[in-house]
Amino acid sequence: METNLTGIIAAPYTPFDENGEINLKIISKYADYLKKNGVSGAFVCGTTGEGLLMSIEERKAVAAEWMKHRDDQFKIIVHVGATSYKDASSLTRHACEIDADAFSAMGPLFLKPDHVDDLISYCQEIAQAGASKPFFYYHIPSVSGVNLPMVEFLNKAESKIPNLAGIKFTHNNMMEMQLCMNLNDKKWNILHGQDETLLAGLTLGAKGGVGSTYNYMAPLYIKIIEAYNNGDIESAANYQLLAAKFISYLIKYGGGVIGGKPLMKLVGVDCGQLRTPCRNNTSEDIKEFEKAIMALDLLQYFHQS
Amino acid sequence: METNLTGIIAAPYTPFDENGEINLKIISKYADYLKKNGVSGAFVCGTTGEGLLMSIEERKAVAAEWMKHRDDQFKIIVHVGATSYKDASSLTRHACEIDADAFSAMGPLFLKPDHVDDLISYCQEIAQAGASKPFFYYHIPSVSGVNLPMVEFLNKAESKIPNLAGIKFTHNNMMEMQLCMNLNDKKWNILHGQDETLLAGLTLGAKGGVGSTYNYMAPLYIKIIEAYNNGDIESAANYQLLAAKFISYLIKYGGGVIGGKPLMKLVGVDCGQLRTPCRNNTSEDIKEFEKAIMALDLLQYFHQS
Amino acid sequence: METNLTGIIAAPYTPFDENGEINLKIISKYADYLKKNGVSGAFVCGTTGEGLLMSIEERKAVAAEWMKHRDDQFKIIVHVGATSYKDASSLTRHACEIDADAFSAMGPLFLKPDHVDDLISYCQEIAQAGASKPFFYYHIPSVSGVNLPMVEFLNKAESKIPNLAGIKFTHNNMMEMQLCMNLNDKKWNILHGQDETLLAGLTLGAKGGVGSTYNYMAPLYIKIIEAYNNGDIESAANYQLLAAKFISYLIKYGGGVIGGKPLMKLVGVDCGQLRTPCRNNTSEDIKEFEKAIMALDLLQYFHQS
Amino acid sequence: METNLTGIIAAPYTPFDENGEINLKIISKYADYLKKNGVSGAFVCGTTGEGLLMSIEERKAVAAEWMKHRDDQFKIIVHVGATSYKDASSLTRHACEIDADAFSAMGPLFLKPDHVDDLISYCQEIAQAGASKPFFYYHIPSVSGVNLPMVEFLNKAESKIPNLAGIKFTHNNMMEMQLCMNLNDKKWNILHGQDETLLAGLTLGAKGGVGSTYNYMAPLYIKIIEAYNNGDIESAANYQLLAAKFISYLIKYGGGVIGGKPLMKLVGVDCGQLRTPCRNNTSEDIKEFEKAIMALDLLQYFHQS
Repeated sequence: METNLTGIIAAPYTPFDENGEINLKIISKYADYLKKNGVSGAFVCGTTGEGLLMSIEERKAVAAEWMKHRDDQFKIIVHVGATSYKDASSLTRHACEIDADAFSAMGPLFLKPDHVDDLISYCQEIAQAGASKPFFYYHIPSVSGVNLPMVEFLNKAESKIPNLAGIKFTHNNMMEMQLCMNLNDKKWNILHGQDETLLAGLTLGAKGGVGSTYNYMAPLYIKIIEAYNNGDIESAANYQLLAAKFISYLIKYGGGVIGGKPLMKLVGVDCGQLRTPCRNNTSEDIKEFEKAIMALDLLQYFHQS
Repeated sequence: METNLTGIIAAPYTPFDENGEINLKIISKYADYLKKNGVSGAFVCGTTGEGLLMSIEERKAVAAEWMKHRDDQFKIIVHVGATSYKDASSLTRHACEIDADAFSAMGPLFLKPDHVDDLISYCQEIAQAGASKPFFYYHIPSVSGVNLPMVEFLNKAESKIPNLAGIKFTHNNMMEMQLCMNLNDKKWNILHGQDETLLAGLTLGAKGGVGSTYNYMAPLYIKIIEAYNNGDIESAANYQLLAAKFISYLIKYGGGVIGGKPLMKLVGVDCGQLRTPCRNNTSEDIKEFEKAIMALDLLQYFHQS
Repeated sequence: METNLTGIIAAPYTPFDENGEINLKIISKYADYLKKNGVSGAFVCGTTGEGLLMSIEERKAVAAEWMKHRDDQFKIIVHVGATSYKDASSLTRHACEIDADAFSAMGPLFLKPDHVDDLISYCQEIAQAGASKPFFYYHIPSVSGVNLPMVEFLNKAESKIPNLAGIKFTHNNMMEMQLCMNLNDKKWNILHGQDETLLAGLTLGAKGGVGSTYNYMAPLYIKIIEAYNNGDIESAANYQLLAAKFISYLIKYGGGVIGGKPLMKLVGVDCGQLRTPCRNNTSEDIKEFEKAIMALDLLQYFHQS
Repeated sequence: METNLTGIIAAPYTPFDENGEINLKIISKYADYLKKNGVSGAFVCGTTGEGLLMSIEERKAVAAEWMKHRDDQFKIIVHVGATSYKDASSLTRHACEIDADAFSAMGPLFLKPDHVDDLISYCQEIAQAGASKPFFYYHIPSVSGVNLPMVEFLNKAESKIPNLAGIKFTHNNMMEMQLCMNLNDKKWNILHGQDETLLAGLTLGAKGGVGSTYNYMAPLYIKIIEAYNNGDIESAANYQLLAAKFISYLIKYGGGVIGGKPLMKLVGVDCGQLRTPCRNNTSEDIKEFEKAIMALDLLQYFHQS
């Protein structure tokens, strides 16, 4: 199924209040902030959004809230992945009801498949619950532990999942990503999923990406895309280097989910704490991290001027 | 919290009907079969029971059904593990309502902890939802991918999880299991969780075990325990060797969950197919497997005579 | 220590004769073939060269033979890595005696270090045996199993290994590679080591690479570099796509070492069989693979026209 | 090929002097100490002996020195494993020349096999260089990274390696070990290789074991064997528990190789430092470790009274 998802798509953090309950009222401000910074969509309730740390009802409420802010320049993709296809299908039907632009599921976390055919059966069960909407497989081996060959997945799934649109490709296998992007006359929409290699993805044909650092540093990545589109690879690489330096710090503070969530407060969109089993950084850690961001002079990329 | 769970405890398969929906009416027959074979309890909705492939409501229905067959010689432990502590807590509250003997949760499958402290926080959140009942941590790194040090877990969790009873220990680290069994004057109830090493577990102090092959071959394992208790290690080892030979076949056919489920039909308790993403064996595969069982002359251990 | 290693550097296969002994007399023809195809150097006795499958004396003989063909347009880097630093140091002294351009060692295969400091101690011991020549650390986690942080390695090793020149970076962590290339005013020579991502490497600043498919398909990669240097990213990506398609076949036939070695016969430089424990492809497999190469119309890139 | 290797076999540390060179003159005292403590043999130049951190000539010298102390109550097995079969074969021929009781090789560390057939080819090449002596495959996945199915290995290797005697089985897969011990009328000599599970091994049929802690704590393990042979499993388990407590400390200080080597000084056999890339414990660490040993009252098991 065709889609036209391009540009910088954020994978939003899910805001929780001081009691650890979902805090829907922040989402309006959050969406405004993203739009102002040139973000073209949101991939909600995914890894960054602590999707599977919420109940099904909570996930539906969060997705529905984001849909209130959807417009043609700001598309909403709902992550519906769950250990049980029953839950994933329920989330899929809901995503259709609220008229999301697309939906997506990561590889199953429980009793993981060893064969592409079994992964396809699982995706098929979920995708058919939302047959009118485009489905993206969410390839993220570092989180799902499912690392099956994606070229084979696309080729075999084509006839079995009519609404398959492509892959959210969050993996470091650039060769596989390039091959996927070029199958069947570039039929598939492959969303680049590693912020730290966006430029590499662009050179191989990516038209956009989904990531966690796009929540607060979208302007930097938009500069990478602009420089690349202008044929100025050197500048693009310099911006990408800034992202790399930032991300090497981010990793020290727990990575995109744990390290990144507190940064939303810095940009005025307080998303609260992470749910267990995630460990929240101490306020001292967060201050140190913010100092490092200042030292790299990165704050200018946290807000579109 | 003290418990007295001993002997051969089965981890039942969840019966599904021809439409893939839970088939509660089989459970009565299933429980009878287990009791006749000397099984002393059931660990329901765990790995073998495809626990996380069901919705929360389905899991509650299955657990409630098993509770109808609970008696003092047949205890029920409910697995409540879920990616979200919200779901796990809801299952825990239900397990208390139906008066299960104990409840248990595996290490979290999504955004897995790197530190024991974070695992304890997660378990604490779940365990406190059922404070009146004993809680077992379910240590099964091959499924959960969470492999943190269990001695440290027990020592640190003791003060934070008052209803911690012990560990369902499904891992090949026998040294760690022995150390856990001997902490604090043997305070903890460590349930041996690898059918293929039951005898090794007994020599180290285990009083019982939970496993998938106990669903259909309990009489063989009871012979291991009897021989061991009689001081006849050689016979015990010979029975354990039979189990090992059987399990090496079982692995060829997909292991305890995928390979084992079809065997329930052989003993008259048809549990139906596995849910996606599990791959069901073909009827040819199942026939071949059954032939191997006959060739090993193992059928005598499928029913208590 | 400064070096000027750029362009397409092959990691040659070691030729063995029909008795499995090193076949030095082929190397003259081999070097000619590489030079004709625009290759700018050889990284000898590395992974592709089955370095550690040879005795120390054999490795010295092979390195010495390649040195006969060294010139300013065709540099020789000798891989000296060995499980024992005694052996590695002996190889290093020999590399200096024969006046190789540089030498390199992969992470130790036996009793692997967990800390950068220990890796540096190991490299220091080896590097000081050839203090007059540039030393490259050979970062290839997929072969060595050693995956320690390379930015930290460079920063800490700088003062301890005066002749450290850089890294042969054979890993899919593009962010880390970019950070390494940009440390200390781009002081370090980072040799891109994944043929399938050469273009991505170029955009991030790589000036050259070392690889196994450069043995027989150098002209294709030179086209990638030329297109990139001309600002024609689209053409560069199309050539890279050809490489990716080829390599996805290569992987089916055992990868760069096992799958690639028989292709040398196709280009007229028969390198014989691989040593145990490598499995040699059957002649049927090799024929099938060659057919796939023809079908992709890749033969034109096997010889510079 | 039949062998009669039983009892507690030490895997000796290789003594190095203050310059890091092999210190052969200590070995006489070392052998005396082992014999006095009831040790029945030595597996030399293996993992504990830093085998692959030495040159081939050094390994031969160490093996020859141990052979001077061989007698019918103290057998010598020489580890000949090397990345190159050329080196391993040279070591094998030497082991035969010095008339060692047996020789052994671990799975290849470089270009590791994925298939049992390839592992057998590699072992075959080595074993045939010493056709008159028994060959043991050394199964130690945690060090070699080679974890292929051992039942299949034995069954397939039987006809190809006439001098195959069995396996030094250093792995936590007790089921596989039991199956191996019971193949072909218990034809194979399976040497238990995990000190921390010796009792479990005995119950499954092991007649002896090879390990690193047997270097300095053999009396404790002999008590396990004696209690087991007397049918006193409870005492055997209590001694095994002491070993487990000790080993859990040992692991904190780097494990059997790094943590254990300094303990040899405590028993009067100073083996010096470990070679790079191993990290040597500081003298503070060693003192702390020794205090823990005293606190566990384990020193009584360091010397046979």
